[in-house]
Parts: sequence; structure tokens; C-alpha cells
Amino acid sequence: MNLLILKAEDISNGVAVVTGRQLDHVFDIHNAKKGEAINVGLLNGPMGNGKILSIDSTKMSLELTLNIPPPKPLPLTMILALPRPKMLRRILQTISAMGVKELYLVNSNRVEKSYWQSPFLSPESIEEQLILGLEQAKDTILPNVHLRKLFKPFVEDELFKIAEDSLSLVAHPTTDIRCPIDCDISVTLAIGPEGGFIPYEIDLFKKHGFKSTHIGERILRVESAIPAIISRLFPG
Amino acid sequence: MNLLILKAEDISNGVAVVTGRQLDHVFDIHNAKKGEAINVGLLNGPMGNGKILSIDSTKMSLELTLNIPPPKPLPLTMILALPRPKMLRRILQTISAMGVKELYLVNSNRVEKSYWQSPFLSPESIEEQLILGLEQAKDTILPNVHLRKLFKPFVEDELFKIAEDSLSLVAHPTTDIRCPIDCDISVTLAIGPEGGFIPYEIDLFKKHGFKSTHIGERILRVESAIPAIISRLFPG
Repeated sequence: MNLLILKAEDISNGVAVVTGRQLDHVFDIHNAKKGEAINVGLLNGPMGNGKILSIDSTKMSLELTLNIPPPKPLPLTMILALPRPKMLRRILQTISAMGVKELYLVNSNRVEKSYWQSPFLSPESIEEQLILGLEQAKDTILPNVHLRKLFKPFVEDELFKIAEDSLSLVAHPTTDIRCPIDCDISVTLAIGPEGGFIPYEIDLFKKHGFKSTHIGERILRVESAIPAIISRLFPG
Repeated sequence: MNLLILKAEDISNGVAVVTGRQLDHVFDIHNAKKGEAINVGLLNGPMGNGKILSIDSTKMSLELTLNIPPPKPLPLTMILALPRPKMLRRILQTISAMGVKELYLVNSNRVEKSYWQSPFLSPESIEEQLILGLEQAKDTILPNVHLRKLFKPFVEDELFKIAEDSLSLVAHPTTDIRCPIDCDISVTLAIGPEGGFIPYEIDLFKKHGFKSTHIGERILRVESAIPAIISRLFPG
């Protein structure tokens, strides 16, 4: 945790009260003391610091100075085949940490039906992971995550509007167009499940103006492919 | 598993016998049948395919055709502060999958002493994770992993030789030199622990010719920073 994210309801008259996971981190791991200042941010608001007015194992109160804008969001909309639950939480953290603000989790032929039943898809669980990503990267703007359980209607009815005026790419190892570097326009990027999108799905993306692209002959796991592709697309 | 890695001792007269984890994957997950061919590679040797001569839940035999060279290694030597054991295995897979062939796991001020006691640092455990990475990425060349429990002697006595004639970089978020793109020379890249190298360590790297570099203002976890930096350094 490089930034402690507060919610508006935690704050009253410029003072925040912190308990639970965040307190444990500051108190047990950083061993912070009264009078010290720590990096804080208001969820969907400015960042700054919080001076510790009091701290013990049950709660901490912080006097806030919030005057720094959060980093700029990436001009990227990501469409991601729903990962297996074991990986979903970590991938949500990664996407949030990297600055993606629009994420569509979609079905695909190689996504197991059972993944859609995962408790990690509850709004509370998703938000928890996204906030962990923001706290890692020092950002405050919560990404929007949209769940789309049906692939074909998503592509046929929604994708045109989502990808409008953007460079539209689908990551696919067996294509021969290399991933562009340091784009200066917005990008819509689709990444398939482990095993990849099936040819029918790739064709449907292509029919909607997507170009398939790769980052080399090595096949990476989704959790490595995401940072690898994003860091080529944008200078950071 | 996109490539089944065999060891020389598994092969006799061009036929390999496969059991255990690899068999389970082919038999249970891919549901492969007699007569089908699967992607195989000889550890530290060529790749090709294996025609299934027989398969059941206890073993599979494969007739091998090995005539494809593995992908080129990255011209990269990585120096990585020892990650926490929970992350070490996955990071070894990532590094192996990305084509790194020389890895130094080193101590650093922010590496907890207990990490060096992890059973995941045994040669067998390290090799297991590296092979999983090769099987993911379709490569056969096992990386060399070197453990260095003392930071200062490593830097003062070994680093000069390791980094000789290479572009020497240490990843550090608070520097202002951006990570170079698509290098055409070999690179030595040092990545610190969560929390980063301490100033003393950064200075020691700099005294040995390293330049500090960053990939943006966002602080990424080590497992995301590795693919993000490597994919900028090399075209893949």
C-alpha cells in the first residue's frame, strides 16, 4: 500500500478515522507513530497526506491535506475474457494499478460457465480489488467494471459504440502485426482467455474494425500479457 | 501448458513416456486421444510434436519429431531482489516465460531475512517453476538462476563482470529517465523489492555504471513491473 484510499464517509471536518486492513498495514507493517504523515487519497478525488493525530491497534485518526490531482487515466478501454476466479482478483488489481478506467469482463468460448458464479464478481469484491490496485499505484479514480455474460450481443450491439474513434486491437499470438508503441490516441484492447479467443470470435472482432496484434512469439499468461501490452501501448 | 517439456531421461529410441502432472493435463484437460499430436520440446533442445501412441490415466507414450529450434533468448540479465515466497514461484514462471536466461536473486535491505529460508528456493522447486514458464511460452532453454544472499559483495565483486558491455539499468520509480524502447544491445536490469531498493543500494548500482529508469509514475507490483519493463526493452 503506497497510498491509503479514504472514502468520503470516513471523513468529517477534514479528519478521517481509519480501522481494519488499512490500520493494520499502517500500524503493524509501517509501525507509524503519532505526528507522522502518510500518503492518502480520497476515492475519486485528490491525493495528499494525512497527519496521524492518534493511532493504536483499534483505530487511527488523520488530519487531511488533499491538494494533489491523481495521475491521468490511460486512454484505454479494455475488453477482457473473464479470467478464472483464482486469477480474477489479482488481474483486477493489475488493471486498476495500471490506470485502466473502463473494463468489460466478457464471456468467450473458452471461459468456463462456472466462472460467472464466482463470489469474486460481486460489486463489493470487485471494488475491494480495484482499491488495492489504486493503493499500490497511487491513484484514486475507481475503474468502471462492466460484466457481459453474452459474447455475441456484446460485440454486435455494444462494441461499435465502445470502440468508436479509437484504435481497436485484439491481442492474438498467431497474427503478424506487432503491438504499436506509445500511441497518442485512445485504444480499445481486447484480450482473450487462456487458450485465446476462438477463430469465430477473432473474426467477429475483425468485422467490427479490430486489428489483431501480438507482442512476440512467446505465449504469456493473461496476468503478464496485460502489463506487457499496456506498457508498449502507452509511455506511462 | 502450450508445450510439453520432456527431459532426455524420459526418452528412449525416439519415444517418450509421460506420467504425473503433464499426463493429467493432456489426458484430463485436453482430453487427447491416441493418434493425435501435441506440441513437445526437449529441455534445452529442439521443439516439435509428439504423436500419441498410447494414453490412459496412468501413462502416455509419444513418438517424437523434434526439428524446430526454440525461440531466441532475450539478451537480458536480470538482477532481482528476492521476492516474498508467495510470489517467488509465479515470478520465476513469468521470467522463464518471457525468455530471460540469466537471473540473479539477490538480497536487499527490504528483503526479509526469512525469505531466504523458503523451500521454494530449492533447486528442484526453482526448476519446476522455470519449466512451467517454458511450457507456457513455448520455449525449451532453462534459465540459470543464481542466489546471492549478500548484496554488497555481489555488487562489488561480481556485478562489473555480469554487466560488462551491456546497457545497465536499475528500475526506480522516482528517477526521471524513461525506460528505453526496443534496445538492440544486451541489457542488465536490476529490479528492487516491494518498497524499492534503498538509496544506499541505488547509489552502489550507480557507482557501478547503472542508470536508474522508470516506466511511469504508477508504482507497480514486481510481478507486473517485470513484464511491463521487459516488453518495452525488447520488441519480443
